[in-house]
Amino acid sequence: MSIVVVGSVAFDDVTSPSGSIKGVLAGAATYFSLAASYFTQVRVIAVVGEDFGPEQEQVFQKRGVDIRGIEHAKGKTFRWGGTYGDNLNEAKTDFTHLNVFEGFHPRIPKEYEDTEFLFLANIQPTLQANVRRQMKGIRLTGCDTMNYWINGARGELLETLKVVDVLLINDTETKMLAGETNLPRAAHKVLAMGPKALVIKHGEYGATIFFREGAFGIGHHPFRAPTLPIEEVKDPTGAGDSFAGGFMGYLASQQELNREVLKRALFYGGVMGSFAVERFGPERLQSLTREEIEARFQIFRELTHLD
Amino acid sequence: MSIVVVGSVAFDDVTSPSGSIKGVLAGAATYFSLAASYFTQVRVIAVVGEDFGPEQEQVFQKRGVDIRGIEHAKGKTFRWGGTYGDNLNEAKTDFTHLNVFEGFHPRIPKEYEDTEFLFLANIQPTLQANVRRQMKGIRLTGCDTMNYWINGARGELLETLKVVDVLLINDTETKMLAGETNLPRAAHKVLAMGPKALVIKHGEYGATIFFREGAFGIGHHPFRAPTLPIEEVKDPTGAGDSFAGGFMGYLASQQELNREVLKRALFYGGVMGSFAVERFGPERLQSLTREEIEARFQIFRELTHLD
Repeated sequence: MSIVVVGSVAFDDVTSPSGSIKGVLAGAATYFSLAASYFTQVRVIAVVGEDFGPEQEQVFQKRGVDIRGIEHAKGKTFRWGGTYGDNLNEAKTDFTHLNVFEGFHPRIPKEYEDTEFLFLANIQPTLQANVRRQMKGIRLTGCDTMNYWINGARGELLETLKVVDVLLINDTETKMLAGETNLPRAAHKVLAMGPKALVIKHGEYGATIFFREGAFGIGHHPFRAPTLPIEEVKDPTGAGDSFAGGFMGYLASQQELNREVLKRALFYGGVMGSFAVERFGPERLQSLTREEIEARFQIFRELTHLD
Repeated sequence: MSIVVVGSVAFDDVTSPSGSIKGVLAGAATYFSLAASYFTQVRVIAVVGEDFGPEQEQVFQKRGVDIRGIEHAKGKTFRWGGTYGDNLNEAKTDFTHLNVFEGFHPRIPKEYEDTEFLFLANIQPTLQANVRRQMKGIRLTGCDTMNYWINGARGELLETLKVVDVLLINDTETKMLAGETNLPRAAHKVLAMGPKALVIKHGEYGATIFFREGAFGIGHHPFRAPTLPIEEVKDPTGAGDSFAGGFMGYLASQQELNREVLKRALFYGGVMGSFAVERFGPERLQSLTREEIEARFQIFRELTHLD
C-alpha cells in the first residue's frame, strides 16, 4: 500500500548545544517521508523553489519516495532557522521565510489518486480538508496541526477534524484545542470533534493514544508507548514529523487496522522519532536499515515490558 | 519483613482547582507509611507537636503502622500551605512553619532495630546518613532529597549518597544534582555518586529506573513504568512520597531483590501515586484494598503492554 503526505519542504538553519547546521533539507513532509519510507511507498505533495534541485531530489529518490507531487515554483524554498538551549523541547525561532510556501495550493497528481492512506502535515486547515475531500479512495487520514491554527483558524480546523481519522498533536496543543487542562478529559473532548483516535505526543516521554468508543475495536483504555531515553540528542527538529512517519507508515503497511496494530504503530512512531534526533537534519533517517529499526523496537518494548 | 521510614509528619492546607482543605494530616512520612502499609509492616520515625493526638494516631494504627518512633515534642507540628494552579505539577508554597520539625533529631527505637528496609524521606542529608549508620541490619536503603539540599548542602548530600542503595528524585533534581541537562547522562553521573539504582519520577508521565552496571542483575537498559492518565486529580501533594511507599513497600515484601522485582516495584509506585492524587490529603490511601491495587496494576501493565 502507499501513503500521500502533504506538507512543507524547507531548508533549515539549526543551532543546538551539540553544534549547528545551515541550509539542511528539512520540513515536515521531508522528515515524514523519510521515516515512513521504511514501511511503505510514500508520495509527497509539496512546493519548492528554484534552489531545490537534483541534490535534494536524490534524498527522496534514494528512499524510493515518489516526488511527482512536488511543485516547482518561481522563488525560494521555505526557510526556517531555530536555536535550542538546554531545554531541547523548545526551539527559539530565529527566522521564518515562507517564500514559495506562502502561496502553496496542494495539487494531487493523477498518479496518486489510488492511494489509501493520507497524512496532512501542519498546514492551513482548509487546505488540509480540501486535499482530503479530493482523494476518494482513502481508508485512513492522519493529521497534524499547531497552536497557530488552533488559536487563529479554529473554525476551519474544527471543519477539518470532521474528516480526519487520527489527530497527532502534543500535550499543550491538546489542552488548548479542548480548552481543558486535564489531559484525559481534554482528549475526550477532542475525540468528540471528529477523530476516531488521538495521539498525544509527550516529547521525551513518549506518546499516548486515546480511542473513541468503538473505534478500531472495543475497550476504552488509552495506550502509551515510551521513548527510549537518548543520550545523544543533537537536533530535536522533525522529531514529531518522524514520529508521524513511523506511525502512519506502519499503519499503511498493514492489512487490518485494529487496536493491536495501532499500538505497534505508536511504538514505531517513537522509534523513528528517536532516530531523527540523533543527528542534525534528517541525516539519520536516510541511512537506516529495517534491522536497526526492529532492534530499537525491541528495546522500546522491553523498556516497559513486565513478564 | 518491615520497613522504617524517617521523615516529616505535618498538617497541610491545600488549594487546587478542585477545592481546598485545611489542616489535613500529611507530610512525607504519612503518605509513605500509608502507601507502604498495603505491602509490608511499616515503622515511622518522626516528630510531632502537642496538636497531634489520638485522632491522628488512629490514621496510622488503622493501617497497622507502628508509631512508637513518633516523638512528641513541646510546640506545634510542622505546617505547610500550598496552592496548585492549572499546572498541577507545581505548587506555590503559601507558608512553611517548621515548628517542632526544626529541631528534629531522629531517634531509633530499640523495637525497630531488626528492620531490613529503610526509607530516608526528604530531610537534612546528615540526619539521613546518621539514621542509616545506626541501623545495622539493613538490606536496602531508599532515599529522597530536594533542590534545597542539592544546592545548599551538596557536600553532606554526597556523603549520604554513598550509603544509599536507591535514590528516588525527579527530572529537575537529577539534572541539578548531576550538573547535566541530558537525562540519561545525568542518571549515569548520579549513579557514580553511590546509589545502585536511580528512580527518576516524571510526574504524570511515570518513572524510569536506571541501574548501576551489575547492580541487581545484569544488563544496562533502564526501565520505565507509566502512570495512568487520571481524569480526577484533586491534590497532587504526596504523590512522590506515595510513589516511594508503593515502590519500597513492595520491595520489602519480596525475598529476592532482582531487576524483575524492581520493575514491578516501579509499577506499584506509580499505582500508589495515582491513588494518592484522587482525593485531598491522604484520604484515598486510608481506604484501599489490595484488590483495587492489583486491578490498577493490571491497567498500568496493559497501558504499555504489547502482545
